[in-house]
Amino acid sequence: MRGAVLHGPRDIRFEERPDPEIQAPTDAIIRIVAACVCGSDLWPYRGINKINGPMPMGHEYLGVVERVGDEVTSVRPGQYVIGSFVASDNTCPHCLAGFQTACVHREPVSGAQADFLRVPLADGTLVATPGEPTPEMIPSLLTLSDVMGTGWFAAVAARVEPGMTVLVVGDGAVGLHGVLAANQKGAARIITMSRHEPRQKQAIEYGATDVITERGDDGVAKVRELTDGVGADAVLECVGTAESMQQAIKSARAGAHVGFVGVPHDVHIDGIQLFRTHVAVHGGPAPVRQYLPELIDLVWKGEINPGRVFDLTLPLDQAAEGYRAMDERRAIKSLLLP
Amino acid sequence: MRGAVLHGPRDIRFEERPDPEIQAPTDAIIRIVAACVCGSDLWPYRGINKINGPMPMGHEYLGVVERVGDEVTSVRPGQYVIGSFVASDNTCPHCLAGFQTACVHREPVSGAQADFLRVPLADGTLVATPGEPTPEMIPSLLTLSDVMGTGWFAAVAARVEPGMTVLVVGDGAVGLHGVLAANQKGAARIITMSRHEPRQKQAIEYGATDVITERGDDGVAKVRELTDGVGADAVLECVGTAESMQQAIKSARAGAHVGFVGVPHDVHIDGIQLFRTHVAVHGGPAPVRQYLPELIDLVWKGEINPGRVFDLTLPLDQAAEGYRAMDERRAIKSLLLP
Repeated sequence: MRGAVLHGPRDIRFEERPDPEIQAPTDAIIRIVAACVCGSDLWPYRGINKINGPMPMGHEYLGVVERVGDEVTSVRPGQYVIGSFVASDNTCPHCLAGFQTACVHREPVSGAQADFLRVPLADGTLVATPGEPTPEMIPSLLTLSDVMGTGWFAAVAARVEPGMTVLVVGDGAVGLHGVLAANQKGAARIITMSRHEPRQKQAIEYGATDVITERGDDGVAKVRELTDGVGADAVLECVGTAESMQQAIKSARAGAHVGFVGVPHDVHIDGIQLFRTHVAVHGGPAPVRQYLPELIDLVWKGEINPGRVFDLTLPLDQAAEGYRAMDERRAIKSLLLP
Repeated sequence: MRGAVLHGPRDIRFEERPDPEIQAPTDAIIRIVAACVCGSDLWPYRGINKINGPMPMGHEYLGVVERVGDEVTSVRPGQYVIGSFVASDNTCPHCLAGFQTACVHREPVSGAQADFLRVPLADGTLVATPGEPTPEMIPSLLTLSDVMGTGWFAAVAARVEPGMTVLVVGDGAVGLHGVLAANQKGAARIITMSRHEPRQKQAIEYGATDVITERGDDGVAKVRELTDGVGADAVLECVGTAESMQQAIKSARAGAHVGFVGVPHDVHIDGIQLFRTHVAVHGGPAPVRQYLPELIDLVWKGEINPGRVFDLTLPLDQAAEGYRAMDERRAIKSLLLP
C-alpha cells in the first residue's frame, strides 16, 4: 500500500509502505475512506518536534473494517468505523471515568494518511456508524476522530452550560469546533478571537456572536468590555502557547474554568495567578472515544456539520500539498481522500 | 480598646488601640466574642511577608453586633454574627456566582484579635446565628469565619462527591477541616498525609480512613498503592508550597480536580504536566460567605465540630503566646477569648 511519510522538515513523501498486519488478536485493519492533516502534525513537519527516522503520518481516520483479530467482537468487516487518535481498552478505571486517552493500555494510532491502517484495541477504540454514510457526511464523521472531539472536550473541560458567555481562544479548526461545541451546549454568547476573515465567517456560521481582533491585554480589555467588566463564564484555550494561556486566564471570570486542548509549548502557570483569580484550568489530550457515540448521532441527524472546517480537499497521494497549504495558512484544514 | 498588633518579626503586642468607628453607612461594629490565630498570620509573624509599620492582627471572628450604620438592614445590635475574612457586598456578579472573595467591592477585614472590630459591608459580609450560641458551639462557629470555610472550599473546588477516594495534603487546621468537609460530602475513603500523632488522631476523628507518613515520590507511590494504581478521585491541597502542589497533582487520577487553598508561595505549574495528566487545578481565597448559612446550620445541629482543631485556648491579652505556640508547632490552632 502507499502512505504519507515525513522524512525531515517539510519533506512529506507519499510512498510505498508495508501493508499493515494483525499483530494482536485485539487489532483491526481498516481501509481508509478519509483522512486529514492535524494542526499537531505541523509541529514535526516544521521541524519543531524532532523525529527519529521516517515517520508515517496521520492519526484521524474514517474507514471500513477489512479484517479483525480473533478477540474483536464489537466491529466486523464491512462496517464504517471511526476511532480515537489514541487506542484504548475502554474498560480500565480511567476509560470508565471517561478519560480514554489516559487508558492504562493506551497506544498512539499513527499512519492513517494511507490506504490501510492497523487499529490496536479495536473493541475499545472504534465505533461503527449506523450504516453507510453519505458522501456529504464523510468529512464531518472524520472530524470526530480528533479535531471535533477535541473542541468538544475543550467545552466540557471549560464546563460550558446553557446561557453562558463563552470565549474561544484560537481560530484554527479546533477553535472553530470549540465554537460549535459551545453553541451545541447552549452558550448564549460566544466570543471568538480571530483576525482571519474566512475563519471569522466559519466561526459565525458555527454560532459565534462576537469577533475580537485585538490580542494580549487589548484583547483582555475587549472581553471585559463585552462582559460588563465581569469576564467570560467559560474559556476554551485552543492554541497551546504561553500567550494564549494568559489570554484565556485573564479573560475568565472568577470561578470560571479554562478548558485547554492545544498541546502546551512552554506554558508555565504561576500558582498565585490562579489563586488570585479563582480561575480553574483543565485540559489534556481529548478523550474523543467518550464522545464518539453522541457526536456520530449528531452528525447522522444533520444537527452538526463539523466537516465545514475542511477548505481544501485533495487526493490522498497529494498529502504533501495538504501540509504545505496548512503550513502557509492557505488552508484551515486539509481533507485527504484515497 | 485593646488589640493584638504586630510590630516586627515575632513581636506581637496586645496594646491600646483606638475604638473602631462607623466610617460608612454600611459598616457594623461588633464586640468580639472569640478570635483566633490563622496559619496565614504566621507569614508576617515570621517576617516572610513584609509589613509596613504596626499591623493590627486577626481576620477570624465571632461577635455580637454593637451598632450598625444607617444603611445596614440584615443584622441588628445584640445579634451574634460571623463574617468572612473578606468583606463583600454579596450583590455583584462575582458574589452572585458564589465567589464573594472576588467581590468588586471587596475589602480585607483585619484587626479581629481585639475587643471590637469594624466590619465593612455588613449586610453582605455578616451572617447572624439563629440565637445565642452555647459556650461549646463558640469555637466551632468561629472556624466558619475562615479556616473551616477554607477547608470546605477545598473540597468544593476538588469536586468531592459521594463515594470518592479523597486525598488531603496538609495536616494543619485547614487540612483537618478539609478532611471534615470531604467526610461531610460523602467521601468513601479519605487519605491524609501527616507525621504528627495529634494531627493524625484529629484527622481520623474527622473521618480520615488512611494516614500516609511518606512524602514526595514515596508519598505518591503510597497513594497509588492504596488506590490500585489509579490515584485519588479528588485532592485537597492545603499547604501552598511547590512540593505540596506536586504531591497533589501527581497523586490525582486522570480528570481529578486539585482544590488548592494554601496561599501559593513559589508555586509554578508546567502546562504540559497538567496536559499529560488531565489533572485540573482550582483554588483561591475561599468564598466563605457563601457557605456560612449552610455551615452555621450544621454546627447548630451538632453535625460538625470544627472547633476541635483548637488545642490551645488563651485569654485575648495573651495573643502573643498563641502565635508562639503555633510558630513552634506546639499548637495546631490557638483560640483567643476576651
